[in-house]
Amino acid sequence: MREVRVLEIKQSVFADNDRQAGLLRQELKEKGVFLLNLMSSPGSGKTTTLLRTIEALRNTLKIGIMEADIDSDVDARTIQQSGVKVIQLHTGGMCHLDAEMTRQGLLGLETGDLDLAILENVGNLVCPAEFDTGASKNVMILSVPEGDDKPLKYPLMFSVCDVVLINKIDVLPYFDFDMEKCREYILMRNPDARIIPICAKTGEGIGEWADWLLGEVKNWQCEKNF
Amino acid sequence: MREVRVLEIKQSVFADNDRQAGLLRQELKEKGVFLLNLMSSPGSGKTTTLLRTIEALRNTLKIGIMEADIDSDVDARTIQQSGVKVIQLHTGGMCHLDAEMTRQGLLGLETGDLDLAILENVGNLVCPAEFDTGASKNVMILSVPEGDDKPLKYPLMFSVCDVVLINKIDVLPYFDFDMEKCREYILMRNPDARIIPICAKTGEGIGEWADWLLGEVKNWQCEKNF
Repeated sequence: MREVRVLEIKQSVFADNDRQAGLLRQELKEKGVFLLNLMSSPGSGKTTTLLRTIEALRNTLKIGIMEADIDSDVDARTIQQSGVKVIQLHTGGMCHLDAEMTRQGLLGLETGDLDLAILENVGNLVCPAEFDTGASKNVMILSVPEGDDKPLKYPLMFSVCDVVLINKIDVLPYFDFDMEKCREYILMRNPDARIIPICAKTGEGIGEWADWLLGEVKNWQCEKNF
Repeated sequence: MREVRVLEIKQSVFADNDRQAGLLRQELKEKGVFLLNLMSSPGSGKTTTLLRTIEALRNTLKIGIMEADIDSDVDARTIQQSGVKVIQLHTGGMCHLDAEMTRQGLLGLETGDLDLAILENVGNLVCPAEFDTGASKNVMILSVPEGDDKPLKYPLMFSVCDVVLINKIDVLPYFDFDMEKCREYILMRNPDARIIPICAKTGEGIGEWADWLLGEVKNWQCEKNF
């Protein structure tokens, strides 16, 4: 297999992350690149969801993926098999990415020809929620085995996300997961959240998710032209 | 239901966490209190495993539990039903506990009569691994739905833990989880790790885990007397 590109991200020197994030978002808008920040706990299915997303949108959008992890290049190798542009980012032990770290990743990825760049953030429900990466939209995955009470325990993550994908719905019969209760908890944290149950393994629900994402990318690119 | 006690933990003022952790460990040894630091991703089954652990050891040891979360008192309420001493710690948004924060928790719990105090750390595979809490032993849970590749991505967590409990083995048939590969990855990070597959829901494997824990508490208390 072809070797994946691995970039060792340097720690940021900027204290004013919100300003850096705003600048990055503006630059990306001028270039017509939509940046999606995908967050979740470890093992909730970010990479498998990305494979399905690529499958659904690759004929319509030019997509590039940044896989952020503390170590390993497992995820970038998986994504590479889909044929889209991918880079593995190593965070040097850091538990999240901020805007400057994301900028380093985007430079490594080379976004010139892309419509959609996706950052798969470090698996963590706490720290990534605290840092604006400069993304156009934040999306998170909550998987059924993690339990329906997570919005109660990790409020900020649910507050900052535009979409919550509830993944692994194929195993609902084997877990005590109350979908209605979970929706209620999510909306308590974030009344505007869009909630989409999916199964990345089987593809269930991916259509609705891909439609939402495509709509957002198109809006972003249209706004650029006005 | 009786209200649970909730303690708002203050951020630490000590820069030298390792020294604070060493001091706390020494004090606990003098008091004969064994402190276990239990870590994992969100939703891997820490609280259910604790309920089983309490069930197995409550007639032999005096147990107290500290439930650390960013928000909510869901876990402390669950533990309270078992009848053991419990306190909910709110970390004020912090993604981990250090030794000084743990000390605040222990003071709130009141450990005078305890043999075993357990800290259920914030659900997070990154940050808690970086801070010595003063615990006698570190233990982590990896649950089957999270996947067998987690030791590759979160190396430090697996390195600092004496025991890795592999939970939710009842759902092995529904997930692509290779137990042998997982063992190999864990031992690559930590050749001395003890690996115990369990199902906290059914109780499978809890005997081996409780035996290990009881042995460690007894050793700790014996050492105190010499």
